[in-house]
Amino acid sequence: MAQNEISVATIQRLPIYLDYLKSQDKDTARISATTIALALGFGEVQVRKDLASVSSSGKPKIGYHIRELIKQIEEVLGYNNVNNAIIIGAGKLGCALLGYEGFSHSGLNILAAFDADPSKTGKTESGKPIYSMAELSDFCKKTKVHIGIITVPAMHAQSACDALIEAGILAVWNFAPAHLDIPEHIIIKNENMASSLAVLSSNLAKKLNEEA
Amino acid sequence: MAQNEISVATIQRLPIYLDYLKSQDKDTARISATTIALALGFGEVQVRKDLASVSSSGKPKIGYHIRELIKQIEEVLGYNNVNNAIIIGAGKLGCALLGYEGFSHSGLNILAAFDADPSKTGKTESGKPIYSMAELSDFCKKTKVHIGIITVPAMHAQSACDALIEAGILAVWNFAPAHLDIPEHIIIKNENMASSLAVLSSNLAKKLNEEA
Repeated sequence: MAQNEISVATIQRLPIYLDYLKSQDKDTARISATTIALALGFGEVQVRKDLASVSSSGKPKIGYHIRELIKQIEEVLGYNNVNNAIIIGAGKLGCALLGYEGFSHSGLNILAAFDADPSKTGKTESGKPIYSMAELSDFCKKTKVHIGIITVPAMHAQSACDALIEAGILAVWNFAPAHLDIPEHIIIKNENMASSLAVLSSNLAKKLNEEA
Repeated sequence: MAQNEISVATIQRLPIYLDYLKSQDKDTARISATTIALALGFGEVQVRKDLASVSSSGKPKIGYHIRELIKQIEEVLGYNNVNNAIIIGAGKLGCALLGYEGFSHSGLNILAAFDADPSKTGKTESGKPIYSMAELSDFCKKTKVHIGIITVPAMHAQSACDALIEAGILAVWNFAPAHLDIPEHIIIKNENMASSLAVLSSNLAKKLNEEA
């Protein structure tokens, strides 16, 4: 499988295909790119290209075998290996992510959260543990955890990131609105909500100015 | 101000400059692009280009007047007009966003959440109200609210979106992993966490395969 050649844009659409394919799995064994494109509101050419990059088993006039396609997409996305993750920062966002059920079918298994504030340690509503930062290193050594999710305030993000990397984390999912310095071998994905809001807000400002 | 020409990538970095400039505002009146670039770990050429797109007041060897630059960035981002917003879906993510203090200095003022489940109505921990969906239309008519934030499960996202647009919302910030059909005049920003996770997860899968 030529996984290296799949574009980021395609990878970002794969979970959307996956959700849809799973919802159709009971009703029918095969599905065409045309049907998928129509159902998701995507262009047909794009769907064909996306699916061709993960699977060579689509047949003209017959389409894709749904279960096979699901398996192939999950393989590309690494959903077959369950990815253990931990969260640094047990504030509101951290706890929302800790209890978010939508991640489980993505192979993401959030084991615990860590917080610098000792008064936050204990169990969350969702039954998952919150530990103090002093326990991070030991916890990572004992469990096979690759992903660290950062949900601390911006000013503490770099030190949270450093602690994760020291504890052996390979990939960082950063929700703090801060630029992080990381070694080259660490995978990082920044999820900057202030930046997303900025795009929405500046477009809205333009729109309101035009109307005024 | 040539706001139309500012790239999305630049707009996404503006909140990061803004946070930094505000943190420096008390200590010094002027700041150079070089200092900003160093502090944020950005390339100097990029910083110069970004700042030139929002302000023409930077002077060689003297730099930018910090307060003026803050004002200019806030204007581009529409942070001067406070943007009222509402949330559809008072689940964990919805409540996390409702109580998130980080938005307030972005001019985003989340007034309330709405939920289809009547047992969720009342007040949140943060003191903000949760209403039933039946109250959405009246609420939007009474308050000047432009932004609707969708945090419902994927299968309910389109109907939540339709309800927002019918209630007069101009911009949709969509956290549900679903493609939304919207009229052309509505501004949309999709915040697909499953897609972000997919990028992280597929990169990690590649890395682990290489090491194996």
